[in-house]
Order: sequence, then structure tokens, then C-alpha cells
Amino acid sequence: MENNENNKTTNRGKMRRPPSRKGGDKRKFTEKTPERAPVLKNVKRVKRKIPPVRIVFLGGVGEIGKNMTALECGDDIIIIDAGAIFPTDETPGFDLIVPDITYLIENKSKVRGVILTHGHEDHIGGVPYLLKELKIPVAGTKLTLALVDNKLREHRINDAKLITIAPGHTVQMGCFKIHPVNVNHSIAGSLAFSIETPQGVIFHSGDFKIDLTPVAGEPIDLKTISETGTSGVLLYMGESTNIERAGFTMSETVVGTTLDRLFSENADRRLIVATFASNVHRLQQIIDLAAKYGRKAALSGRSMLNVVEAAEKIGEIKIPDGVLVDISKTKNLKDSELVVVSTGSQGEPMSALTRMANGDNPQVTVGKNDTVIISASPIPGNEKLVYRVINNLYRRGADVVYESLEKIHVSGHACQEEHKIMHTLLKPKYFIPVHGEYRHLKKHLQLAEQLGMPENRAFIPEIGNCIEVTSNGIRRVENVQAGSRLIDGEGIEDEKASMVIEDRRQLSEEGLFIVSVAVSGGEVVGEPAINSRGFVFDFHRDYNKEIREVILRTIESYDLARGTIDELKRVIKRSLRNYLMKKTKQSPLIVPVVVEL
Amino acid sequence: MENNENNKTTNRGKMRRPPSRKGGDKRKFTEKTPERAPVLKNVKRVKRKIPPVRIVFLGGVGEIGKNMTALECGDDIIIIDAGAIFPTDETPGFDLIVPDITYLIENKSKVRGVILTHGHEDHIGGVPYLLKELKIPVAGTKLTLALVDNKLREHRINDAKLITIAPGHTVQMGCFKIHPVNVNHSIAGSLAFSIETPQGVIFHSGDFKIDLTPVAGEPIDLKTISETGTSGVLLYMGESTNIERAGFTMSETVVGTTLDRLFSENADRRLIVATFASNVHRLQQIIDLAAKYGRKAALSGRSMLNVVEAAEKIGEIKIPDGVLVDISKTKNLKDSELVVVSTGSQGEPMSALTRMANGDNPQVTVGKNDTVIISASPIPGNEKLVYRVINNLYRRGADVVYESLEKIHVSGHACQEEHKIMHTLLKPKYFIPVHGEYRHLKKHLQLAEQLGMPENRAFIPEIGNCIEVTSNGIRRVENVQAGSRLIDGEGIEDEKASMVIEDRRQLSEEGLFIVSVAVSGGEVVGEPAINSRGFVFDFHRDYNKEIREVILRTIESYDLARGTIDELKRVIKRSLRNYLMKKTKQSPLIVPVVVEL
Repeated sequence: MENNENNKTTNRGKMRRPPSRKGGDKRKFTEKTPERAPVLKNVKRVKRKIPPVRIVFLGGVGEIGKNMTALECGDDIIIIDAGAIFPTDETPGFDLIVPDITYLIENKSKVRGVILTHGHEDHIGGVPYLLKELKIPVAGTKLTLALVDNKLREHRINDAKLITIAPGHTVQMGCFKIHPVNVNHSIAGSLAFSIETPQGVIFHSGDFKIDLTPVAGEPIDLKTISETGTSGVLLYMGESTNIERAGFTMSETVVGTTLDRLFSENADRRLIVATFASNVHRLQQIIDLAAKYGRKAALSGRSMLNVVEAAEKIGEIKIPDGVLVDISKTKNLKDSELVVVSTGSQGEPMSALTRMANGDNPQVTVGKNDTVIISASPIPGNEKLVYRVINNLYRRGADVVYESLEKIHVSGHACQEEHKIMHTLLKPKYFIPVHGEYRHLKKHLQLAEQLGMPENRAFIPEIGNCIEVTSNGIRRVENVQAGSRLIDGEGIEDEKASMVIEDRRQLSEEGLFIVSVAVSGGEVVGEPAINSRGFVFDFHRDYNKEIREVILRTIESYDLARGTIDELKRVIKRSLRNYLMKKTKQSPLIVPVVVEL
Repeated sequence: MENNENNKTTNRGKMRRPPSRKGGDKRKFTEKTPERAPVLKNVKRVKRKIPPVRIVFLGGVGEIGKNMTALECGDDIIIIDAGAIFPTDETPGFDLIVPDITYLIENKSKVRGVILTHGHEDHIGGVPYLLKELKIPVAGTKLTLALVDNKLREHRINDAKLITIAPGHTVQMGCFKIHPVNVNHSIAGSLAFSIETPQGVIFHSGDFKIDLTPVAGEPIDLKTISETGTSGVLLYMGESTNIERAGFTMSETVVGTTLDRLFSENADRRLIVATFASNVHRLQQIIDLAAKYGRKAALSGRSMLNVVEAAEKIGEIKIPDGVLVDISKTKNLKDSELVVVSTGSQGEPMSALTRMANGDNPQVTVGKNDTVIISASPIPGNEKLVYRVINNLYRRGADVVYESLEKIHVSGHACQEEHKIMHTLLKPKYFIPVHGEYRHLKKHLQLAEQLGMPENRAFIPEIGNCIEVTSNGIRRVENVQAGSRLIDGEGIEDEKASMVIEDRRQLSEEGLFIVSVAVSGGEVVGEPAINSRGFVFDFHRDYNKEIREVILRTIESYDLARGTIDELKRVIKRSLRNYLMKKTKQSPLIVPVVVEL
């Protein structure tokens, strides 16, 4: 890992705000005179047309997940985040989905690097797949890069150039000068980016909330945000995850208060706390409470061990001596002396907590004297998995504390009042909502309009959209190729993915019919073999006999000498599909197989 | 439909409470002396051992959906509800899941009838499948039976005996005397049942909330519930759906207030309101507002038309003259003159609202001057479908009002304070929580214990459990066969269902490989044909060639003359599975096909 401290801007010690353009003219800063389009003056000076900045949306808009946005100006491209998303019912059996980066590959020579807002999967999960195609530097905070580094090692990528950045340090990538700005979120080391471009400042919020009493680290840097706004923001791209929620997201310290009460109320019981491994401030609170209440803390789950190790190494988590104990050495501890900190807060099938709930975790056997605290909300789509774990923990006699019952989790994302503060401080000329489904982006736009943003200066993006922005205009230009890249097993599949998905969907919903016939010298020989899987028959009927007759009639009426084998397959498929639809109202996948002798 | 008015108990005009035992001894009633186990006296009088009442849990416990409970005493069985549940990701492609009723079929001669608490799918969806096996009477309120009747006609069941019941009327089935008690819920005609059994009164709450200012109909009959409690309740079975929510569920009238404001605020726009067709009181409010604001109401969606027709016929909904208009005759109406009332509040793929969102509803084209109000919450599991519809409506330029943004829906289920009222009024001797996942039942038990229920008098049931209760004891006895019956297409499949599900799961997650070989006179002839579907290759490798070689080697080393074709299939399957696992880390379903010539 390369530490890019050389790029640190050194004026005024710890820098609180980024300058809004290159070189001279400091007067405007110190006097805080509002200015709209400083770069235009440069244009006049150098008598050369500055190209517009293109914003290319490759992921994370019209969806929650796999965030990726490219900024392009002239011969330079930088990428903000390279996220992944976990598959849904609609893409069964795939391991991961990352953005289609064809556009970046086609413009390989221009790409100067990727800057990461924070270390969550939907922001860094695509980094290995990006680096397999593009040898570019990766910039992020210490914790973000530690998590990226774990991934790269899994993918055996050893030659990545990692650039550590931090609020107050800047990094130059091509014509872009990037100023990281500290924000609060549910993972330490989260950043917004104030990016100086030849057309003006583009501010990207990353994922953020306003937590003015954070558990560790600094509160969001509202001063820098405010000063950036005063100096002039050309375009604001703001996250939209919680835009539907009124009010203000509670501080992380609220969770600590609840946890403290639960530690106190359950003094004689063993405690098991499940949370996101990446939420190191939450982990810090649990570990501090363990110390306060005289318990040992044992970590359970591979990612919990990995993250705590990485976070401790870089000083993001502080573990008092003697508090941590190896989970395998807890047999002799009394229940009152132990808190287990576990993965599995999303009910992930192979996680430590799920295995406890199922009674097959070799290290922790859950029983009547356990209180299990699930310090997380189910991510939409995970509800069933989480509730199954809760049901099974109750069945084992444990008491379970979860979000429906207690204030045991807070979101990492800003609610409406926080967004209003961000817009008010930044006062951008143009606005594009990001990170959300269409409904979130729409609501975010409406909120911006309430605060005075004119309708024609804002835009709701979709994946593949491309926007050109200059100091005095914004317009949509032609889309680029973009979408999903599905990753399954060891292979990566692009073009065939949609066909595979459709096959799998049909297979899973309707089952399968295989008809095999043997062909020799242009003639069908022998009897067709019929196999079905995952298909439900009315067991009162003898379909097999009828199907065989349908196939035989079809083959007999087909003149193979004048047709082709592919056409024979199509004919068999059509007649069987018609028959099955008529008789069973089902439409299984039909695979005709011709064995040539 | 047979109207069972003859069974009406006529003392005191409109009966407010059921007597707690048969014949005489009215003194206890009028003097309201508490009494614990009145039936015990009967026992002494007749000098004959009264058999215990068995409660057999066939569905709706440990799950939300397909509610079904049997009460058995001596030679009599009655069934409370016969629900269905819609399939989940774990049972892909099935149409419906109903309870396994093997126990009832085995005890066919004892079953006296089924009594329905209300007309929701999870309470009546299994009625046709029950009646196909058992010719028994079905008792419910007018609206419940109207909805059942629609189902029976679809299934071409014409000979069902339907018994209309109503609060204050009783019905006798074998030794059970059933007193329907009015409750509030999100469908009209909802009942609790106070059931006199030879061992004492068993009270079943059905689905309920306490709404003392309902939109139509009567408030929940708290007086009868209270008097039943005073007379003595042996066992209370109470629903648990909302037990995790503190406080009190809001009255249905709250929704009317929000809707009224939305009608007023959107005076110039077309309104489209999507809600559950079965929530006739919600429909009544929308129609009343249409009349108030001078709009015509057009119904969209088959079930909306069916329910309104059925509800109007029996007087559950009152439509002012001239308010309803056929959806096909709305072209000439101004936007301000129309409200469309639509199905699809759950984002169901083929529903009217989903088709509007997709732009393929032939009758309604959504645009910028539409305000779409989704007056429902997504049922857990439906979130993605609902949000997709909302996103697409926004994309078409409509404004969308939904629950995250407005008080536009209230639940039909009691929250904690309402449950406390029910327990306090009934003061049952024994308690069994029903209708909920394990976590709900557990929380309901804890609530009962808070109110003084001793731990050893309550029990959390699971499907298949059987409880014996007498006037002075409760105990668990041996389980009965119970579970799920999966329904797909026209057929019903019991035993093979789990195999089919497993095949479908594997097909959907890993894809499929078909290897076909031709065999003639005990020898393999020709080349094997290899087909794969839904399987992802690493496209950098030529797997097909390698697979062909693996299969050829396997066939060559197999002596078909000494083995069987089934064994050859197993050998092919094993060698291909090993190869694919090693090379691709995937395990698709492998189907070897042998064509005999």
C-alpha cells in the first residue's frame, strides 16, 4: 500500500475545505465571495475550449447496490466506487453481480484510477473484477483499503496500486483533483468527495448520515461542506437510500445506550450479539461494554475475525488488553463472563449465528440461559432468512432481542432533514440523485426542488445514462453500454447471462422435459426416450404413454431426408409444448436431444 | 346457500353473549357469578367419563398462512378455517400450498363441518381442496360464503352445503355448539368463535383488531367477550400476527381521513387507488369519497369486480346511484371526474395496477396528471414487486402515494394493547397462541404471562401437534400427520412434492446437463450427445470437448453386457459430476438419457 501523503495540501495545517480551482485567486476563498463559474475565466485565459465533464452511470442508480460512476473529461476518466450486489430470486444460483464495465474497457487508456467512498460490498465488491481488466490505482481510506486488500488476496491479485487517502489530503488523477471529506456512515473511514474538475466542483456524498456524537472518529465535516458550497459547487450527486424517511437518523450512540441496558439486565446470562462485521464502531461499543461489565468477548465467524484484525491493525478499533478470548477457549467461562460477537445478522445460511440457531455450530450451543441480540435490520429481501433464525433461536429456549422490539440498530443513511442540511450547505448549481431505486431518486429530486432547485437543473439517471456538464449547462447525451455482469463459480459470463437466467427461471418454475431420439442415416431409429424433472403430473393420468404417441406421430410425419436435425428438434419441441400446455396448463422447458449414430 | 336462522338463540332479542353450557342454570348468567369449570358438574350428573377435547394444529402455527385447526371430542371433529398460502422461493413454480389433511381424511366419519372466521385466502383458500375429500358443511358469514362460493364455482363444486352464520346466531356441529362473535378486521364479516365443548368453552379469536369507530358494521363485541370471560373460558386460542407491535392499531377511519385530504389536494388530477379487493370497508370509503367529490368510480381488475358485486348483493357495500362507471366507458371523462379503483396493491404481476405501471393495461394509460394511491402495505415477501410497480409508475410521470410516505393503510390485526384487553376480558384457564411464526407465538405467550397466565397452562404449538384439554388439565399427546400439500397446475402432488422442489431448486441454482447415449444390442452406438441449459461456463475453456472425452472414456470402460442400463446411467452421472465439480466448482443436475434402439 502506498501512502499518498505527498499530495497533502499543507496550507492551514489540517485542511478543512478543498480549494475550488487550481492556482491563485485566494481572495475569493478568504473573503467567501460566492462565485458561480470560476473555470470560465480559465477558458478565456488559455483560449482553448475545455471539454465538458461527462458523468457515466454504470451502477447504483435505479437500484440499491453495485454503485459505480465514471467522471470523464478530455482524456481522463476516474471511477467513483466499484460495487457488487448479491443475486436475487431473478438471478438464481449466481454468486455475485457487478457492473458491466465495457465502456471502461473500451476507454482503457483514459482511466486514471478508482476512488472508493467506503468499504461496504456495494462500493468495493466489484474492485477485483475491475482490476482484472484495468491496471489502475485504487484510492480509499485505510479501512476501505484493508477490506479491498482481503478481496484482492482471495482473487490472487498482488500487483494492485493502493493509495491511502484521508480527509484533508488530496489526490490528483488526470485533470481531476479529489478532496476526500469526512462523513458518518455505518462503517468507519467513510468519505464524500469534493472533486475539482476543469468545469467546476463536483461533490459526491458517498453514503452518509449526520452523526454529531459519533462513537469514534470525527463527526461529518459540515464546515468543509459548507465552505465548499460557499466557493461554488457545480454539481451535487447525493445518495438517496433513506430519502423516504422523515426526520433525522439517530446517532450510533443510541445503540450503545440500549446495549448497555441489555448488558445490565442480563447480568447472569450469556450474551450473543450479532451485527455487521464491517460496523467497527458497533463492535467497539460491544467490546467496551464487555470490558465495563467484566465479560470476555469471543469473536465468531470468519469475516468478524478478519475485520477486527484489519481494523485493530490500522487503529480503527481499540481492544483493551485481555478482553478478547478465542471462541474455542470459552468452555470454562461462566455465562455471565462471556459475550459472543457473531456474524449472521442477515440470516446468511452458512453464518455463525444461523448455525447456532440450527444447533450445528461446533463452538456455541444455544440454550435457555442465552440472550441473543441481533443488532441490525434485515436488508430488504433478507427478512425471511433473519426471521427463520430468530424463530429457531426461540425454539432453543434463548431470549432474542431484535429490531422490531428494541432500539438495537440505527441506519447509516441520512433521512430527509439531513438531506436538507446537505443541499442547503452545498447550494449546488446542478443536482443528480444517486444510490437508490427510481422512487428514491424521484423523492430526492422533489426534496431538492422544495429547497429551490429548478426542475431543469436536476436529472434522474438510469444505468447507462451519460450526462455532460459544463460550467453553464447540463445535458443528456447518448447512452453507453452498461448493465449487469453475472458471476457464477469461477467463470464470468456476459452475453449469455440473460439466456441462462431465463432458462433457470423456467426450470425452477415449470420443470423440464427431455425427449431423446436416435437418428441414423437420415432416419429416426428406435423409440424416443422421455425424461422429466421437476415437473408435476396429475397422477391420475398416464401421460407418459400419450406423450410417447405425440412424439412418435411428430417424428413419423417429419421427413428428415428433406429437413435438418435442428428443424426436427424444433418440431418435436413445438408439438410437445402444445400437448403439455393443453393437458396440464404447464409450460416446462423442453429439451429435444438427437443422438446421431 | 342455506340460512341457518333456525338456530338463532332468541332470548333477549339480539343476543350479546353465548351461554357457556347447555340447558338450565341461568342464574349464574344473570348474577354473573364467576365459575371455573361448569361442565364438571355435568360429568357428575351423567356418571360417564367425558372424553377430552383434542386440538389438532394443521396449519397457521409456526407460520403465517394456511390456518387450520381441528377440534375433536369423542366422535366429533370440527375444523376452524381452511386456509391456503402462496408459494415462496423455496417452492418455486407451485400455485398454492394448502394444509395436509391426511388426519381428517383418516377420521372422515367424525368430521361434522368447517367453520370460517372470515374470507381471506389464508382462512378460506383451502376450502375447495378440503371439500374434494370431505363432504362436510361449511359455515361462515354472508361475505365469507360469497367468496367461498366463487372459489367453489371455479373448482366446479356444486353440491357444497353452505351455512350462513352471524353474530348472535349459534350453530351446532356434533357435540360442539358454536357462537359466532363479531370482531373487526380488514374484511367485513369477520368472526371470533366461542365454542361450547363438553369440557368447557374454547374461545378462538380469528383475526381481529379492536376498532371502536369502524367505517361500517359493528365494533368488536367486547361485551359478549367480557361476559364469556365472566362465565368461564377453558382455553383461549388467540391470533398473534402483530404481537411485536406496541400500542393500538389505528381505526380504519384514519385511512378515510387521509384519503379525503388526498381527494381534496388532487382535485384536478385523475386518481387511481389500489387496495385489497376484499377490504370492502376501504372500498366503501373510496366510493363515498368519489360521491362526495363528484367523481365517477371505475373498477379495474377481475377480483375487484367480483368482490364488489358479491358484497353489494349481500348489502356489505352500498353504492350510491350513478357513481359506478364501467372502466371501458371512461374515455370521455375529465381527469377530475374519475377515480379508478384497482387491484394490484401487492404488485401481483398480472394485476391491473402492474399492467398500468408497465404501460400495457388496455383500459388505463398512466401519465403525468395521475396520482396513484397504494392503500396497502406490502405483505412480507412482496416488497420487491410492489416497489417495482412504484418505480415504474414514477417513470411514467405519475405521482405515487404509498405507505412509506402517508398514513394510507392500517393493519387488520391487534397490537399489544388490544391483545392485553382480550386476555383481560377472557381470563382463560389455558392459553395457546396461534397464527404466527414461532417468534410471534413466543411473544404472545410472554404477554399472557405478564398478565398472570401461569407458564404451565400455556403452550406454543407447531404444525402436527395435538393437545388434549379437559376442564382441569392440558397436555400434549402424540403428533398427527400434517404439513404442506403443494398444488401445481391441475394436479395435486403429495409424496413427490419434496423431490420436485429439490430438483427445481437445483435446476434454478446450478443449471442442467443432459447426456444422451444410444444403446443397441447391449452396446453403446454412436457418439454421446451433450446438452446443457442454465449452466455457466468459463468461456475461455472448451469444456464441451473435454466432457465428451470424459463420457466416452466412461462408456468404454463400462461393460454393458454384464451391467444394466440404470447402472450405466449412474456411472455416467457420477463421472460427469466429478468432472464438473473439479473444473467448475458447480454441481448442476445431471440427467443421463439412454435411447434404446
